[in-house]
Amino acid sequence: MKVPILKLGHILLTSIQEDLTDQDAVDFQNNVLTTVMHTDASGIVIDITALDVVDSFMARVINETANMVGLLGSEIVVCGMQPSVALTLIEMGRELLGVQTALNLELGLEKIKVLIEKRKTSWTKNQSR
Amino acid sequence: MKVPILKLGHILLTSIQEDLTDQDAVDFQNNVLTTVMHTDASGIVIDITALDVVDSFMARVINETANMVGLLGSEIVVCGMQPSVALTLIEMGRELLGVQTALNLELGLEKIKVLIEKRKTSWTKNQSR
Repeated sequence: MKVPILKLGHILLTSIQEDLTDQDAVDFQNNVLTTVMHTDASGIVIDITALDVVDSFMARVINETANMVGLLGSEIVVCGMQPSVALTLIEMGRELLGVQTALNLELGLEKIKVLIEKRKTSWTKNQSR
Repeated sequence: MKVPILKLGHILLTSIQEDLTDQDAVDFQNNVLTTVMHTDASGIVIDITALDVVDSFMARVINETANMVGLLGSEIVVCGMQPSVALTLIEMGRELLGVQTALNLELGLEKIKVLIEKRKTSWTKNQSR
């Protein structure tokens, strides 16, 4: 299953609509990274509202994707996590460490805008030193 | 293929990622209408950036969907039409009549916000008469 990635100005929006197989998850990761690269996106919001289950592999893929996107110089926010998913992740001892989260897509977009602004500001500060 | 519908506040976002079969198009229409109904959405933006071809059936479905959504009391904007699609629609003599369009998702969102605001204002005016 191909996960669609929408472009909203300099922000990408993507929504995982059903449980992904391990291969789908890897494809998704590649897709996210190349799209960030090709569209010069400053940030990406991943909506996981539709996911009822996040296994340890999926959690690792999300974590790694976030770190990779960060390395590319972009921001990432995961939004819409179901309570059951949060419960499983914490119980597994697998928090989404280093991943910014938000309650829903709207708040996720607000959060990513703040993160992008922060990154810009810190960059400008470093430049002016 | 199921077309994902994202909820962004009181606006729905949906993106058709590949050519739909006639049955998919009808399912999509039903899905849009029930989602508008269940989420109390004030507007919906349909992104067709990924569509290289819109045949007369698809054009009719989009047109009808727009009219139906309007009847429900919500607004609709179609965005990201490829030049080739615009060309085909005009040559077929099948404009997307009555459908508001926008160049891309960002402008589509702006447009739908304006349309929603307009609808609210006209409603308030009618109320105060």
